Amino acid sequence: MSRVYNFSAGPAVLPEEVLKTAADEMLDYKGSGMSVMEMSHRGKVYDALIKEAEQDLRELVGIPDDYAVLFLQGGASTQFAMVPMNLMKNGKAAYIITGQWAKKAWQEGKKYGDAVAVASSADRTFAYIPDCSDLDIPEDADYVYICENNTIYGTVYHELPNTKGHLLVSDMSSCFLSRPIDVTKYGLIFAGAQKNVGPAGVTIVIIRKDLIRDDLPESVPTMLKYKTHADAGSMYNTPPCYNIYMCGLVFKWLKKNGGLEAMEKKNQAKAAKFYAYLDSSKMFKGTVDAKDRSLMNAPFVTGNAELDAEFVKKAEAAGLVSLKGHRTVGGMRASIYNAMPEEGVDALIEFMKKFEEEHGA
Amino acid sequence: MSRVYNFSAGPAVLPEEVLKTAADEMLDYKGSGMSVMEMSHRGKVYDALIKEAEQDLRELVGIPDDYAVLFLQGGASTQFAMVPMNLMKNGKAAYIITGQWAKKAWQEGKKYGDAVAVASSADRTFAYIPDCSDLDIPEDADYVYICENNTIYGTVYHELPNTKGHLLVSDMSSCFLSRPIDVTKYGLIFAGAQKNVGPAGVTIVIIRKDLIRDDLPESVPTMLKYKTHADAGSMYNTPPCYNIYMCGLVFKWLKKNGGLEAMEKKNQAKAAKFYAYLDSSKMFKGTVDAKDRSLMNAPFVTGNAELDAEFVKKAEAAGLVSLKGHRTVGGMRASIYNAMPEEGVDALIEFMKKFEEEHGA
Repeated sequence: MSRVYNFSAGPAVLPEEVLKTAADEMLDYKGSGMSVMEMSHRGKVYDALIKEAEQDLRELVGIPDDYAVLFLQGGASTQFAMVPMNLMKNGKAAYIITGQWAKKAWQEGKKYGDAVAVASSADRTFAYIPDCSDLDIPEDADYVYICENNTIYGTVYHELPNTKGHLLVSDMSSCFLSRPIDVTKYGLIFAGAQKNVGPAGVTIVIIRKDLIRDDLPESVPTMLKYKTHADAGSMYNTPPCYNIYMCGLVFKWLKKNGGLEAMEKKNQAKAAKFYAYLDSSKMFKGTVDAKDRSLMNAPFVTGNAELDAEFVKKAEAAGLVSLKGHRTVGGMRASIYNAMPEEGVDALIEFMKKFEEEHGA
Repeated sequence: MSRVYNFSAGPAVLPEEVLKTAADEMLDYKGSGMSVMEMSHRGKVYDALIKEAEQDLRELVGIPDDYAVLFLQGGASTQFAMVPMNLMKNGKAAYIITGQWAKKAWQEGKKYGDAVAVASSADRTFAYIPDCSDLDIPEDADYVYICENNTIYGTVYHELPNTKGHLLVSDMSSCFLSRPIDVTKYGLIFAGAQKNVGPAGVTIVIIRKDLIRDDLPESVPTMLKYKTHADAGSMYNTPPCYNIYMCGLVFKWLKKNGGLEAMEKKNQAKAAKFYAYLDSSKMFKGTVDAKDRSLMNAPFVTGNAELDAEFVKKAEAAGLVSLKGHRTVGGMRASIYNAMPEEGVDALIEFMKKFEEEHGA
């Protein structure tokens, strides 16, 4: 068996140690005689497992008691509807458009109320984070919505917007657990698992408990009410049990490796190394403003589509896979999530240098 | 490692062979150097995997080309909303209430229109399937809804209702793939995977293509439109990749073992053996009308709650686990899905006989 360096934007690389544990426990989870996939979610073993996963996540992130943690299905795309359906009281919200996912969330929000775009970086293909220090946020907006790390474009908010006292809602799908956060700055955080957290199929929601309403309109589907899931400890119906188990293994791995502070240091070191090379290269160029660069997703181009394609192909043959950029940006994208070891970044840089030399740049 | 006989109603036992394959492929799926959990759903490898899973399912079940197959998230509970939101044109539907899940679907249906209960077996704790040969179905009902196998109560429709020309919608969560079906008799079939199909976290929907509408009200969330998923081959957003992979392995296992005809024979043999013993026992009694007995879920009681509890406890110690009945029925329930080998049923019967002897019945 030969593992590759996998730069996929998501689903993405998971810690090898976690995968080994999963393989070892596949037919018999801790002497239960069953796979986690096979056991009743109402049984003692699974109940302990999901509670421990939540507890580990609370410790890792520092989630206060007045926030609920939910393990849901449907991906971030389902949150695009749940957020406005559950949080709009005045029927108004402010969206900051920093990429395709923020835009999709905004468009979905418009179904349920007056969703206003208060800032956007669409003018330069989302290559930067707009100045959010003094936005024109409607007084009665129920929340300000951001996509905190933009997977496709490779930008991140290094500073949170000034919401002027409004609730902040953040899609953290591609930066969740990559660095410490102050949960109290947010009303609601959500993250699809398939970047830094676990396999696709589970979405983590952290919501301030006073925002969980029981007075929603009758038309809101039961499964799209946060209250349904919060009241039942994420077990209103059968949860995605195995996906949550995998997240739990990743939480343990993070705790063992120094938690989010240590992870942030590693991620900063990996990104710094990669961007330093990128800035020194004559062939490869980053596509976003340096000040807004993501630590997780680094898009880059040669400026020549044919050369880009050759690079992606040859990199794959060399065991550096999923480097093709998103079609809306083109070129390449290296996603360097928590589970990407520094050796993977080193190998990528070496490969890029060699490619650059071979092509006489 | 010692595997138990797992009679859980769901999540439930999976074929050991399938779990072994999953463990073997955990760190490297077919030489890709990645786990299925780690790979981009837009990549070639996963694209082939999901297409093959769909094709295998189509072959197994005999799904005609004019039906779409969708792999969704959210469980059957999300279907309770999607069905009326997508299929109600006249705002009316007929529901047959044969248990808790049918009732929940009916209640959810009432949010979106005039959902009428046209038959019910609530009068005897859902211990039978009502006569559905001549129901009073409103002329303009958009569909007739059934829960085909009632996991909690242990009943199944051995004959489909006379819908009088109306569309039939079936929740097949706990009988899907346990026997051959004629898909053309249904407008829509759905099934949560966690019984006979795979791990929790993916729901299979089979829908006649002409029922996939593009004229739904603006208020329907994008993720709750069948069209969203049908147009994108179940990849509008990141699907629950690993869960679908596991389902695919189960489809291969079913094909290798003779398909649904062979599975039905095995299931009939297992159930016949179990019910024959049950009917001969002086201590244990089945809880539902013999004519409506499920081949998948067999509830039974001693009539003495203390004795029931003792039985469940001792059975578990003997490696026969998850036999406790649902709280609304009490007693015991043996779920004997496809992946429960006949030896498991034999072991259960032997244990019951011994328990009966020891207690001098």
